[in-house]
Amino acid sequence: MQIAILGTGMVGKTLAAKLASLGHVVTMGTRDPDATRERDGMAAWLAENRGVTLLSFATAAAGAEQVWNATGGKISLEVLHQCGAENLAGKVLVDIANPLDFSAGFPPTLSVCNHDSLGEQVQRAFPAARVVKTLNTVNATLMVEPQTLAGGAHTMFVCGDDEGAKAAVTAVLQSFGWSDVLDLGGIGQARGMEMLLPLWVRLYGKFGSPAFSFAVVR
Amino acid sequence: MQIAILGTGMVGKTLAAKLASLGHVVTMGTRDPDATRERDGMAAWLAENRGVTLLSFATAAAGAEQVWNATGGKISLEVLHQCGAENLAGKVLVDIANPLDFSAGFPPTLSVCNHDSLGEQVQRAFPAARVVKTLNTVNATLMVEPQTLAGGAHTMFVCGDDEGAKAAVTAVLQSFGWSDVLDLGGIGQARGMEMLLPLWVRLYGKFGSPAFSFAVVR
Repeated sequence: MQIAILGTGMVGKTLAAKLASLGHVVTMGTRDPDATRERDGMAAWLAENRGVTLLSFATAAAGAEQVWNATGGKISLEVLHQCGAENLAGKVLVDIANPLDFSAGFPPTLSVCNHDSLGEQVQRAFPAARVVKTLNTVNATLMVEPQTLAGGAHTMFVCGDDEGAKAAVTAVLQSFGWSDVLDLGGIGQARGMEMLLPLWVRLYGKFGSPAFSFAVVR
Repeated sequence: MQIAILGTGMVGKTLAAKLASLGHVVTMGTRDPDATRERDGMAAWLAENRGVTLLSFATAAAGAEQVWNATGGKISLEVLHQCGAENLAGKVLVDIANPLDFSAGFPPTLSVCNHDSLGEQVQRAFPAARVVKTLNTVNATLMVEPQTLAGGAHTMFVCGDDEGAKAAVTAVLQSFGWSDVLDLGGIGQARGMEMLLPLWVRLYGKFGSPAFSFAVVR
């Protein structure tokens, strides 16, 4: 599958490398590919991951069947507008971002919650995209290697309005090793998933490590 | 121990019966004991639980070493004011309520979150009480019988500013059967615990049953 990852931070790199290793054709979208290539460690990373091509947001999105938003929640909507609605229309758009607001320090608050969510904002802004929210409740390593924690005995949530899109994303999650993928329903359920973050950041503060996850025991 | 349970709903009854069965001297606080006694099923419940005495909020709190708030989050602060600050001062005050707002139907939103929490509001309103937030993430049955789900392999959170109060409450939780009690820190951590509820209510809607709980896998 042709997959564009938006964002070249740790989450974007981890997802890109994993998806390429699974045989997908992976591009990474960034604001300015030349500037990104100059960043510390980026040239080395691209040399180690020759299957991954660095492109502008719009070019990456235009050539992809699935677009994965791995940018920070604060800039996600702006980045998606840079991709262009026409390059997202009809496509599976995987939103893994969290609307964290660090302006008052740690722990962050959420810039949107309770009566709305980033997942819903993305779907409203790009009504022709098939938005699926997932992977926002674990760190980058666990996203793609869930079995490194308790043999994978923890839960990944998905939600979205398009059943076909959720099935396609669930198949990718399963290829990462996720065995307990829990479909919460429509994109409105993103509120529950994003509002788990205030607890996640507190647990991260307590443990001093992101090597944990939630299981829904039932 | 002398324990006052505030509230006579399902949560209050379940906690009162369990604590009495463990040998504690249990009272239940209510607005108008005579009116509560007339309610459907209450006389029969009191006949079956002869160790539990029904009193006014203030009388129940005055005679207790620990006060457990099992009222709805919407009325908790008002009920605690009825108890009287002088009857809560110096005491362990266990807050298990959630600030759920059902005014727009199901799923409810939170009436306070993100920059504050009900647990913090309670501690600010009664600065001499030793507030411990816990048990807000499971239903009444699981609160007191955690081992009926997955042999107890799930997590209960506690937070509060008073270490001695948290230790006392943790001991009670362990006597219920909780083996994974996770201390998140001060009462400000109640934000993370209460913001788990939007996900809890969605899972309840999906499963059609409250027989589930969260485990922090680490």
